[in-house]
Amino acid sequence: MKKTKQSLQSKVKKVKLLLLDVDGVLTNGTIILDNQGNELKAFHVRDGHGIKLAQRAGIVIGIITGRKSEVVNIRARELGIEEVHQGALKKIEVYESILVKYGVHDSEVAYIGDDIVDVDIFKRAGVAVTVSDADPSVRPYVDMITKTEGGRGAVREFINLLLKCQGKTL
Amino acid sequence: MKKTKQSLQSKVKKVKLLLLDVDGVLTNGTIILDNQGNELKAFHVRDGHGIKLAQRAGIVIGIITGRKSEVVNIRARELGIEEVHQGALKKIEVYESILVKYGVHDSEVAYIGDDIVDVDIFKRAGVAVTVSDADPSVRPYVDMITKTEGGRGAVREFINLLLKCQGKTL
Amino acid sequence: MKKTKQSLQSKVKKVKLLLLDVDGVLTNGTIILDNQGNELKAFHVRDGHGIKLAQRAGIVIGIITGRKSEVVNIRARELGIEEVHQGALKKIEVYESILVKYGVHDSEVAYIGDDIVDVDIFKRAGVAVTVSDADPSVRPYVDMITKTEGGRGAVREFINLLLKCQGKTL
Amino acid sequence: MKKTKQSLQSKVKKVKLLLLDVDGVLTNGTIILDNQGNELKAFHVRDGHGIKLAQRAGIVIGIITGRKSEVVNIRARELGIEEVHQGALKKIEVYESILVKYGVHDSEVAYIGDDIVDVDIFKRAGVAVTVSDADPSVRPYVDMITKTEGGRGAVREFINLLLKCQGKTL
Repeated sequence: MKKTKQSLQSKVKKVKLLLLDVDGVLTNGTIILDNQGNELKAFHVRDGHGIKLAQRAGIVIGIITGRKSEVVNIRARELGIEEVHQGALKKIEVYESILVKYGVHDSEVAYIGDDIVDVDIFKRAGVAVTVSDADPSVRPYVDMITKTEGGRGAVREFINLLLKCQGKTL
Repeated sequence: MKKTKQSLQSKVKKVKLLLLDVDGVLTNGTIILDNQGNELKAFHVRDGHGIKLAQRAGIVIGIITGRKSEVVNIRARELGIEEVHQGALKKIEVYESILVKYGVHDSEVAYIGDDIVDVDIFKRAGVAVTVSDADPSVRPYVDMITKTEGGRGAVREFINLLLKCQGKTL
Repeated sequence: MKKTKQSLQSKVKKVKLLLLDVDGVLTNGTIILDNQGNELKAFHVRDGHGIKLAQRAGIVIGIITGRKSEVVNIRARELGIEEVHQGALKKIEVYESILVKYGVHDSEVAYIGDDIVDVDIFKRAGVAVTVSDADPSVRPYVDMITKTEGGRGAVREFINLLLKCQGKTL
Repeated sequence: MKKTKQSLQSKVKKVKLLLLDVDGVLTNGTIILDNQGNELKAFHVRDGHGIKLAQRAGIVIGIITGRKSEVVNIRARELGIEEVHQGALKKIEVYESILVKYGVHDSEVAYIGDDIVDVDIFKRAGVAVTVSDADPSVRPYVDMITKTEGGRGAVREFINLLLKCQGKTL
């Protein structure tokens, strides 16, 4: 499937589903471990606000991550995110199943990732977004690179644009 | 209520009450969670010193935050902050109740926030302050943007200015 | 043993074994302690991806660190790193034992360190690498300084180069 | 006691005792709390290496901090620091008692602090040092501002200078 050449704004206008990677996107990429096997993650408050704003505007939010950690479930519950897919070895398969479930087309999906495991989805999603500090190898595959780093409000930056393009700013 | 046009310094001189958001203001916005449901916050030592200096100078300090976490109570106790309002769904209502309690006018209040949920208070408080890394949407509503990022001493930066303008520097 | 003068690329082509320091290389150097004696470390997700990519490309990964913490074992297990040497008072001795075990020559080893305790290995390893925020004293001894800081993807930056030089990019 | 005007290098040559603040100096100033009352601190590995190098060179290291946390004792034990003074309400009194104990003169002491509670010691210590991100109010009182931020190797930067000036570099 070839991506058609359109302005970022016109692509963003169509988005109904926003799918997010976790480590490096909703966090700054640090995987904090203690010596008893606990895992901690540092999410950002303004990403959380953005996700709630997007939900109120009718956007469905989902999470697709290769790792598996209870802390992601905790944060997702807090934000009312129902589509939480962890331990996704092949992210593209999860991506496809979500699209089927919601009956949306590639062009109606935005995806934010930060590494080469995200490229298959970048090639499909209508709006492929990465963060300013992503692995450089992903840059050729994205429609937008946020100014903000992962875990510092990059998701919010995209959501602000999304709501503006769709005329849903509060 | 329209805000009168005055110099920042003359506005700051009147402040008796300093109200603070937590996430993104007293912290850098990261909400650290572990996989057992604990929440951690990273406060800054120099904000803490500043709050104590302001209290000794007779300024009342209060906290208004939309989230709810025991860790905020712990930090507030450490700093002797009595006005701690968590889980504030409508921050402006909490704001108004504090003003009534202390018998102060809008012009005698400074508020530091970082996101659109703070705008209602920004429109009322005599001195509306945000941090350098705040959500860009709040900038039109503030009297001052600190040079320092949230959680890195932004509150202290404002308190230093406050004490200087009021001639209360040690 | 004198290091021969070659281009970085030709040196990197020969690497079969990649040895890594932990604090300051796989982390940003912060040793996080709590008041009950637990230790936490903040690893980076994209370093982890890079390590897995290198392993799939046939590169052996090992860890040599002067400190000793269970959290390093936990992260190493996650990434399938078998050569984990903690509490190494004389890193050069560990280095030599690993080379014997794998039957590789100095010129086939890359080492990433950040401080003067790493200099003995820097002098031996075919490719000596340090991070952008390393102690300045190590700079004369390295073949490459990553653009990225320790704990922010510096290991991944080197692995990206390694896989490219060896024609093993996915 | 008036500080004599000398070059930084000649002052540093005399130092036998290095006294350190904790929060903002050995850490980046963040006081990490969890919702069960635990406190965490993020120390830096290269500061730790520097402290050990200084000790081997015969420099006595001490800690003076206004806060009180078991985590400081844990880190101090790790580094073999015996002079640990926490909960110091009047730091200058602790400072004086340490000088008496070791029989050293002001000119033989270096102190690294980051805030106005450190000014009394800055005025006395032969070498007064602060970190690049210190509260701006302390700058007039110091002999040196490190290029590095607190908690990111600022203590190491000073120790590197100290060992070089004293001809004790390894």
